[in-house]
Amino acid sequence: MARREIANLGENETIDEVYLVSNKQLRPNRQGNLYLQMQIGDKSGQVNGMMWNANDHVYRKFDDGDYVRIQGTSQFYNGAMQIIVSGIERVDVKEVDESYFVHLGGAEIDGLRGQLAEMLRGMKNPHLRNLAECFLIDEEFMQRFCRAPAGVKNHHAYHGGLLEHVVNLMKVSQAIVPFYPQIDADLLLIGAFTHDLGKIDELTYDKGFAYSDEGQLIGHLVMGVALIDEKAHEAEKLGGEPMPYELVLRVKHMVVSHHGKLEFGSPKVPMTLEALALNYLDTLDAHVISYGKLIEEDINTDSAWTIYHAPIGRKLYKGEPPRS
Amino acid sequence: MARREIANLGENETIDEVYLVSNKQLRPNRQGNLYLQMQIGDKSGQVNGMMWNANDHVYRKFDDGDYVRIQGTSQFYNGAMQIIVSGIERVDVKEVDESYFVHLGGAEIDGLRGQLAEMLRGMKNPHLRNLAECFLIDEEFMQRFCRAPAGVKNHHAYHGGLLEHVVNLMKVSQAIVPFYPQIDADLLLIGAFTHDLGKIDELTYDKGFAYSDEGQLIGHLVMGVALIDEKAHEAEKLGGEPMPYELVLRVKHMVVSHHGKLEFGSPKVPMTLEALALNYLDTLDAHVISYGKLIEEDINTDSAWTIYHAPIGRKLYKGEPPRS
Amino acid sequence: MARREIANLGENETIDEVYLVSNKQLRPNRQGNLYLQMQIGDKSGQVNGMMWNANDHVYRKFDDGDYVRIQGTSQFYNGAMQIIVSGIERVDVKEVDESYFVHLGGAEIDGLRGQLAEMLRGMKNPHLRNLAECFLIDEEFMQRFCRAPAGVKNHHAYHGGLLEHVVNLMKVSQAIVPFYPQIDADLLLIGAFTHDLGKIDELTYDKGFAYSDEGQLIGHLVMGVALIDEKAHEAEKLGGEPMPYELVLRVKHMVVSHHGKLEFGSPKVPMTLEALALNYLDTLDAHVISYGKLIEEDINTDSAWTIYHAPIGRKLYKGEPPRS
Amino acid sequence: MARREIANLGENETIDEVYLVSNKQLRPNRQGNLYLQMQIGDKSGQVNGMMWNANDHVYRKFDDGDYVRIQGTSQFYNGAMQIIVSGIERVDVKEVDESYFVHLGGAEIDGLRGQLAEMLRGMKNPHLRNLAECFLIDEEFMQRFCRAPAGVKNHHAYHGGLLEHVVNLMKVSQAIVPFYPQIDADLLLIGAFTHDLGKIDELTYDKGFAYSDEGQLIGHLVMGVALIDEKAHEAEKLGGEPMPYELVLRVKHMVVSHHGKLEFGSPKVPMTLEALALNYLDTLDAHVISYGKLIEEDINTDSAWTIYHAPIGRKLYKGEPPRS
Amino acid sequence: MARREIANLGENETIDEVYLVSNKQLRPNRQGNLYLQMQIGDKSGQVNGMMWNANDHVYRKFDDGDYVRIQGTSQFYNGAMQIIVSGIERVDVKEVDESYFVHLGGAEIDGLRGQLAEMLRGMKNPHLRNLAECFLIDEEFMQRFCRAPAGVKNHHAYHGGLLEHVVNLMKVSQAIVPFYPQIDADLLLIGAFTHDLGKIDELTYDKGFAYSDEGQLIGHLVMGVALIDEKAHEAEKLGGEPMPYELVLRVKHMVVSHHGKLEFGSPKVPMTLEALALNYLDTLDAHVISYGKLIEEDINTDSAWTIYHAPIGRKLYKGEPPRS
Amino acid sequence: MARREIANLGENETIDEVYLVSNKQLRPNRQGNLYLQMQIGDKSGQVNGMMWNANDHVYRKFDDGDYVRIQGTSQFYNGAMQIIVSGIERVDVKEVDESYFVHLGGAEIDGLRGQLAEMLRGMKNPHLRNLAECFLIDEEFMQRFCRAPAGVKNHHAYHGGLLEHVVNLMKVSQAIVPFYPQIDADLLLIGAFTHDLGKIDELTYDKGFAYSDEGQLIGHLVMGVALIDEKAHEAEKLGGEPMPYELVLRVKHMVVSHHGKLEFGSPKVPMTLEALALNYLDTLDAHVISYGKLIEEDINTDSAWTIYHAPIGRKLYKGEPPRS
Repeated sequence: MARREIANLGENETIDEVYLVSNKQLRPNRQGNLYLQMQIGDKSGQVNGMMWNANDHVYRKFDDGDYVRIQGTSQFYNGAMQIIVSGIERVDVKEVDESYFVHLGGAEIDGLRGQLAEMLRGMKNPHLRNLAECFLIDEEFMQRFCRAPAGVKNHHAYHGGLLEHVVNLMKVSQAIVPFYPQIDADLLLIGAFTHDLGKIDELTYDKGFAYSDEGQLIGHLVMGVALIDEKAHEAEKLGGEPMPYELVLRVKHMVVSHHGKLEFGSPKVPMTLEALALNYLDTLDAHVISYGKLIEEDINTDSAWTIYHAPIGRKLYKGEPPRS
Repeated sequence: MARREIANLGENETIDEVYLVSNKQLRPNRQGNLYLQMQIGDKSGQVNGMMWNANDHVYRKFDDGDYVRIQGTSQFYNGAMQIIVSGIERVDVKEVDESYFVHLGGAEIDGLRGQLAEMLRGMKNPHLRNLAECFLIDEEFMQRFCRAPAGVKNHHAYHGGLLEHVVNLMKVSQAIVPFYPQIDADLLLIGAFTHDLGKIDELTYDKGFAYSDEGQLIGHLVMGVALIDEKAHEAEKLGGEPMPYELVLRVKHMVVSHHGKLEFGSPKVPMTLEALALNYLDTLDAHVISYGKLIEEDINTDSAWTIYHAPIGRKLYKGEPPRS
Repeated sequence: MARREIANLGENETIDEVYLVSNKQLRPNRQGNLYLQMQIGDKSGQVNGMMWNANDHVYRKFDDGDYVRIQGTSQFYNGAMQIIVSGIERVDVKEVDESYFVHLGGAEIDGLRGQLAEMLRGMKNPHLRNLAECFLIDEEFMQRFCRAPAGVKNHHAYHGGLLEHVVNLMKVSQAIVPFYPQIDADLLLIGAFTHDLGKIDELTYDKGFAYSDEGQLIGHLVMGVALIDEKAHEAEKLGGEPMPYELVLRVKHMVVSHHGKLEFGSPKVPMTLEALALNYLDTLDAHVISYGKLIEEDINTDSAWTIYHAPIGRKLYKGEPPRS
Repeated sequence: MARREIANLGENETIDEVYLVSNKQLRPNRQGNLYLQMQIGDKSGQVNGMMWNANDHVYRKFDDGDYVRIQGTSQFYNGAMQIIVSGIERVDVKEVDESYFVHLGGAEIDGLRGQLAEMLRGMKNPHLRNLAECFLIDEEFMQRFCRAPAGVKNHHAYHGGLLEHVVNLMKVSQAIVPFYPQIDADLLLIGAFTHDLGKIDELTYDKGFAYSDEGQLIGHLVMGVALIDEKAHEAEKLGGEPMPYELVLRVKHMVVSHHGKLEFGSPKVPMTLEALALNYLDTLDAHVISYGKLIEEDINTDSAWTIYHAPIGRKLYKGEPPRS
Repeated sequence: MARREIANLGENETIDEVYLVSNKQLRPNRQGNLYLQMQIGDKSGQVNGMMWNANDHVYRKFDDGDYVRIQGTSQFYNGAMQIIVSGIERVDVKEVDESYFVHLGGAEIDGLRGQLAEMLRGMKNPHLRNLAECFLIDEEFMQRFCRAPAGVKNHHAYHGGLLEHVVNLMKVSQAIVPFYPQIDADLLLIGAFTHDLGKIDELTYDKGFAYSDEGQLIGHLVMGVALIDEKAHEAEKLGGEPMPYELVLRVKHMVVSHHGKLEFGSPKVPMTLEALALNYLDTLDAHVISYGKLIEEDINTDSAWTIYHAPIGRKLYKGEPPRS
Repeated sequence: MARREIANLGENETIDEVYLVSNKQLRPNRQGNLYLQMQIGDKSGQVNGMMWNANDHVYRKFDDGDYVRIQGTSQFYNGAMQIIVSGIERVDVKEVDESYFVHLGGAEIDGLRGQLAEMLRGMKNPHLRNLAECFLIDEEFMQRFCRAPAGVKNHHAYHGGLLEHVVNLMKVSQAIVPFYPQIDADLLLIGAFTHDLGKIDELTYDKGFAYSDEGQLIGHLVMGVALIDEKAHEAEKLGGEPMPYELVLRVKHMVVSHHGKLEFGSPKVPMTLEALALNYLDTLDAHVISYGKLIEEDINTDSAWTIYHAPIGRKLYKGEPPRS
């Protein structure tokens, strides 16, 4: 029987399926009875779960980040699906087909990592090639880079999401440079590679996704600059000659300015063509993908319009559904 | 002897060359003596011209938009080059090699027009192909479209500039769609073609470039919608069937929303993925080209930085000049 | 017995009355039981209605836009009145006194329509008179214009609301022009008439009020310009002579600029005195009426202040209630 | 021979006329020679005056605010007319026809004052009538009120300008109240009368117009409230009964909120309908008159457009000049 | 047995304690049963109280502002503690130890009042000393000044809060002036004393805290100026000589400008050094204390971060809790 | 004879004095004659210098940053003093009394450096003391820190200006902490010390003051974080134990957030009390000193007001000059 994916749950379905659980909390209701609230998810999405008349014993049966078998019923509440949980049991990870829970399998990540290396090693500028090489041969860095999400919510919030975003952005960068000879193709490419570097430490992503304290207090733009400084020193040893000072400046400038405006958290606005192009392409990539998801996953199924999304200040047009 | 291009004039050069003149004005100075002020240009750029001790007779010897032979001396004043004119005579257009005065020759324009037609006729959607065809076969429209500049100052302010901007934007659109399957390639392509349509009437460009009254009071976004409505009616006749209502809406929406924000003059924000992508790519194309020109033509020759440009709120980094 | 008007329901009243119903939805609650939610209204206002333990059978007994007899009890919940519905039956429109459901009866609408025509036909400028005449004699247009609301919520959200707003604005325009000789009275008058023209297609108002797709994607400012262009062509035939180009421009400019600022959705700011005055008077009319309603209908009955209204960023002062 | 009005000076006219002079300054030029700079005006406008090769003797021959006979030549410089002064002599005020220098003659001011009193004494609310009466019978106040300008530059910057603005605003207020029954006509009328009261001390207008120190440090909104408090106390004595507390609050609220927004210097936003209407009508009156002057006095004589005015962020459309 | 302080209630505690009650409301729930909702507080804080199955009899047993004995159970609901009330009885004020309900006891207030007087009487400028004296000897004013809170919510919202804020600000002012010789120490000190004067009438604080009508319509900045004018007149009598006009202007300017920006409700921006310093120090004092409370009272006990606070647009960092 | 200080030059004085010269440029005027333009300064200020009829020989006689003997005449031009230079000769630094050219002599700088060290070594937190010690014992760093200006223009734009600003800010920090027990005194003190660290490389200040490329592309906030990371590593060696991770985070957070808002170039807003206080005190110190200078050095000598300063959007009140 086909797996019940979170994103495709209908109303009032009976559920008996393995999911990933997080954010469990034991709370009293108005009448003083305890209930258990949790997030229930798989790779297709996440919903809220409620288990009425819970107790401390149930609460301790599993941890956030565990796989659990959930029994219960789906229900529509306040415009969102939730699951009323009647039974919950921890499941050993060995018995789970993890492909249901990750957006990107190991093979896909390996493929993207290979494309990343190939594009970086294909740069003409030997200094930038050396700089990139120092990242590529740092296995610990690469492990984190390939596992990090690109965000806590929104776009690319899954393991490998950062890698996927970066590789796509590098491809788009390569696609548009033929039409702009005034742009240095290698600089834009390494800018696309490095712009979100700091996210490997800004976020925590071992169990659930969150911001680290350093991420919140310092931010990935400043943290990324430190990583580039470190690798630029290594690149000098690797290359046996000094890195051109201006070249490193240009790379670091792309990182600090890639949000485009001060009010978006960049301490400097783009002042080179590559920094300018990187900002626009990064925004394009992020928004096309996140707006695309809002359209695809919209719950307003009988309307030509998505619900109103306050963070982007608009509804999106899906088009009239076919009339049968 | 090589032609003295406006953009390459040095200080204190003696000049005897044919240029295009515009914006002539006869004015008294503080001492009450009359002088003649004018814009002197060729395809490489424009400078101010001053003729001291002028009179009404000189003033009437030529009209704005005429070719004239200028004798005089170049001079640096207030951070800009100007020409102190000692002699000026009208020259018949037949004696002029117009390739010095246009950015795009007839062959180049024909080439771009051919690419435009090929891309539009290559669309898969038959309704959009019909709509595009109605523009392509309207010779009067195409004449204006291929002659219009893309702006009065800034980027693409020359005959054929609109065509050049549009064709480049269409190519960039085609280059990025393979990486975004959620975007309808044909819609984005026709959006790139139509987004600035209204400029053919918003600007006047027979002699010098300016905004028409309608351009200033109504604007090219609203004017472009009227052109699409007109051609959509023709397309129905051409195709022998109704244009899908939603498809025309989507095209018009891209036009009205392509400035991206209300405060930039779009009465609606982008609410489809194609409108969103069009806004970002149009901005990318316009800014890379205009910022690139600010760098290329910067007068601050002994600095790593351009002068401060108030409209964009920043200086641009050119990089350290080589030290010899 | 007096009719129970929606706006005057007290707490815990027993209800047995005919209302207009819309927006019905069948939903499960936390316990999985279905309930029916709907909007219940008459001309005095609207409240939420809840029918517990509903089912699909009840759900299908009536449609949005039907008149229904409601039995139930009024209740104050979360700062707003609602009705707990115990019984609901569809009522034939023939048995209903529709005067309870419309703000403006047929006679009132006819009266306003007469005033509109009289003011427009009283203009001195023959070209503008011709233009107005083309609207007045287009019966299909006039039907829509006299039936359209002026908005989906807020001010004038009822059949005839657009007409009422426009006629009042025209009267106010006539009242102030004697004090401003620099303003062209006819232009301001036709601006008041045409500024919201596009709303006849921007909104849908056959059953309930909503924005049309075109309304959301293009907007009534742009749509209004198309209507003026169409009628200006007819006016040339009617008048047997060309419409002065500048005059039509001035009318269209008033339409596109009447929101006053780019960030309010006008692609152009007012650049003529008539456009400027129209923007201020339209805002005055809309705000005096909508703020007035907030004061009149405020639920905060024992305070000198209305509740805080986030959209206008303030509370309004009603004045101390008399102390007895 | 007709008087040479400042506003109608052409280029290169020989001048021998009496004007009002202000803002005189003695300055050295680059070559170290002294020149005298001053403002030269009459009721039609003001221009800059330059007297080359001046000295301390000339400088002391007259004071700012004196009438002087000017001999010289008009000249167009940097887009504005100026006068090159060759001779300057002080003229006794008794020999001057002051009607050339004031916008409003004594009879006109008396007329406006009469209309003001009539409108105020026509109010139905006895308390507000008493309050108004206390202003009307305070001759010292009325003298200042009838002499004050409404601003230092821009609209109504002449003796009597405040009175003229206030009386027109009161008439407009009376004209629109029939269409808004929810507005208290008397409150709006007295709001129009009192809104700019503080200007009688915010500005200095005995010789030239300027802001007083108190005007700059405290502002006319706060200063106006103090005047109302003072007169409200007098009104209680006049009326022999307490002024209703709420009524005085409403009047003072109209004064502090009449700029409409915090960022325009109102410490409170309008929170009553009368305050709201006053803000819109005051803005309408001020802008129609000041924009109207920009159009009327525009120096761009051969264009359909005024020059660009940075303070209002736009050019204004004058309309195509007739082509002969 | 130790008193159960509101701020230290744990979940599911049984409660039998005297508290202060306010804001009582009798409401029906969805099932139509009545419940009683109220605010329950002591000096440590406030929580919501709910009494199910209440009736009009219970509702009339006590008034807002009364001390009551509450029996019930604490409960965590929607991220906040509340009390489910099972019994409630009015308690006579004579039986209550009021020190549990006030932040500042009489002795503390007397102490602060003494410090206030000492600092003010220590000023060197005799005119300012006279001005201050007129406030200090006005016992009715002092009573109100020492009882007023500094706000309705947030920082210093308790009797004596205004006094405490003002005295601390005066001490900080004295502490920093040695490092800024360009600042007049006496002016800054009296500015700190007078800046919030108007709050004694802007707020009502006899039973519960609220804004008065005058407070909302006029505001404490404008109201404070009136108080200074009044006392400045008295000071002239007290001193037997005129108050220097400029000195009073400077004091009033500090009051009207102490919010620092127009958009924060100051009709004038600071234009003297003392007004500038006052604005920064007042903001520092208010924010350090209110942000400090957000950290201290944060309910997010197992995180290094407070919850997100929308009014200040951020979370605050508390630091990692010690790991045991 | 007393030295002619730049700040005290009167009009038309004959000058024969030694000054520091910078920014020299050779330019043609309208008539094609060359002139030499330069900045002429001493510690009291800077003025523009013009040498008419200059040539390449004169231009090469000295370099920017040299001391020169200037002969000429002072002149008031366009609201600013300038010097018309008739003679100019390079002077050997050994013959110059440099105390005329520096704001802070060696002894003053040594004194400030001593105070800095004393305050830092007086901290109670041993980790922060170690961190500070690593800066104090780095002689190369201290040399730069004591020589750097605090800005290119505005406040503290002279050698030692950064040190002076930092030491004053540290003193103010110490002065206010007694009144805010919730603030960690050591953290705030080290925040005051480190907040502008990056300026030692953001600016160049060997000959004249300017921004370095790195300063413009990356900024002193990001650069300061790198310096702290470096010294934190050294402090671990010095202390022989790890630096508490959170403590270093808090210091770096103060640096990145000390501009207070994203739009002022801080990539993070203050999220700790010490960061909050640092932002307010830094702003207070900078503004009191820079506004104080605007008042002190104002050229508007016969007015109670300074000229309008666009960058701060206001005039400043100086007070009425004494009337004699």
